[in-house]
Amino acid sequence: MPQGPDTEKPLPPVVVLVRPQLGENIGKAARAMLNFGLTEMRLVAPRDGWPNPSAGPAAAGADIVLEQAKVYATTAEAVADCAHVYATTVRKRGDTKPVLTPEAAATAIHSVSGRSALLFGPERSGLDIQDVSLARTILTVPINPAFGSLNLAQAVILCAYEWSKAEMLVQPPLTDQLPSAPQADLDGLIDHLEVMLEPKGYFFPEDRADATRRTLRNVLTRPGWNALEVRTLRGVLTTLGRRLRN
Amino acid sequence: MPQGPDTEKPLPPVVVLVRPQLGENIGKAARAMLNFGLTEMRLVAPRDGWPNPSAGPAAAGADIVLEQAKVYATTAEAVADCAHVYATTVRKRGDTKPVLTPEAAATAIHSVSGRSALLFGPERSGLDIQDVSLARTILTVPINPAFGSLNLAQAVILCAYEWSKAEMLVQPPLTDQLPSAPQADLDGLIDHLEVMLEPKGYFFPEDRADATRRTLRNVLTRPGWNALEVRTLRGVLTTLGRRLRN
Repeated sequence: MPQGPDTEKPLPPVVVLVRPQLGENIGKAARAMLNFGLTEMRLVAPRDGWPNPSAGPAAAGADIVLEQAKVYATTAEAVADCAHVYATTVRKRGDTKPVLTPEAAATAIHSVSGRSALLFGPERSGLDIQDVSLARTILTVPINPAFGSLNLAQAVILCAYEWSKAEMLVQPPLTDQLPSAPQADLDGLIDHLEVMLEPKGYFFPEDRADATRRTLRNVLTRPGWNALEVRTLRGVLTTLGRRLRN
Repeated sequence: MPQGPDTEKPLPPVVVLVRPQLGENIGKAARAMLNFGLTEMRLVAPRDGWPNPSAGPAAAGADIVLEQAKVYATTAEAVADCAHVYATTVRKRGDTKPVLTPEAAATAIHSVSGRSALLFGPERSGLDIQDVSLARTILTVPINPAFGSLNLAQAVILCAYEWSKAEMLVQPPLTDQLPSAPQADLDGLIDHLEVMLEPKGYFFPEDRADATRRTLRNVLTRPGWNALEVRTLRGVLTTLGRRLRN
């Protein structure tokens, strides 16, 4: 794009799977990525070669991510064009790099120019010390200390999800909720109900009547019903006021 | 716990899997939950019965969640003790309930007293309209509009993850608002009203009766009335059912 670096929107991060073992997990990672708008996958020395026939079915339609995936011999080559490399790993004693959550990493990725890469290690062992050393930052998902069992696709989806939140992929979901009915409609409902309750002794004794009316109004004001809902309730009251059919 | 309602920390939400199909997915959901500290799973009419031998291996060690899972015949029974029910579903045109992201729902769950439940539908079809009508709020994960393919365990992990994030923050003091009444109280109110409306022809014609019941339920679910308010309304109905004094 012909824009200058200071107006340019950061590119989405690259997802780098380092020595992934199962094709199925590569497919699941692709699906997780595309769900949240990430499309660029890089594979470092996949154990079973590439392409891998197990990846497609697990991708559940995210084929475009798999088709465009690029394969590299080393992690260093895979991130050579990236300005910001994050190593996803559990935090270890003696880490000397900054450790960010997926949320903080997403904020960082959105606020810098230059390409970012997220490194994910092999299913069993995770990233090795050599891979981690390529990164400027460690990315750790805060997890239940008594049960840390996050698999590859889960780690990918949480990172992609956090990135997409800042990206505003879709507008924050508005509802089709109608506005609350005007006060006059609500008053009409309350009057209707009071007129029905009065002759049945609901506001007896007399000296409690005002408090009882306030209680009733508070209960019916709380919902913020819209005009349709108020109309439904007027219909309910009209029906309740009918004599039994026979 | 012996603490008063204003110091009490909200309980973690219950995860309700409605008519789940594959045991493997139940296991994956359990793993996703426990990773982020959620332990209470409820199963509504699991297709292949319960326990399911495929669940354990997929849980990858989260056996405690599976062992403690409770089975219910209906969604209504599964959430009867819950004050706040969230239906995870994609947003549809014409939704009349508020729609929250997992993040906003997590904030809401942490800021109210009363138990919350997160409903997740069957793998293929998602929650049906009847299940959704039980909920006060819709929970939708904002997703790539060109590729929405979130599976059950992925939806569960994103909700659990968001919940766990707020869990690590300092808890803001709860308000003095009474908690919403348990779902069973609300059901009692709705039943009471329906019993009164039925003989007066409110649910006529027959082929519209289900839709009419849902409309009524939606209107009455919206407010989030507390137990006192529900009791007030029961009193109103009892009074309306009386014969006129003379």
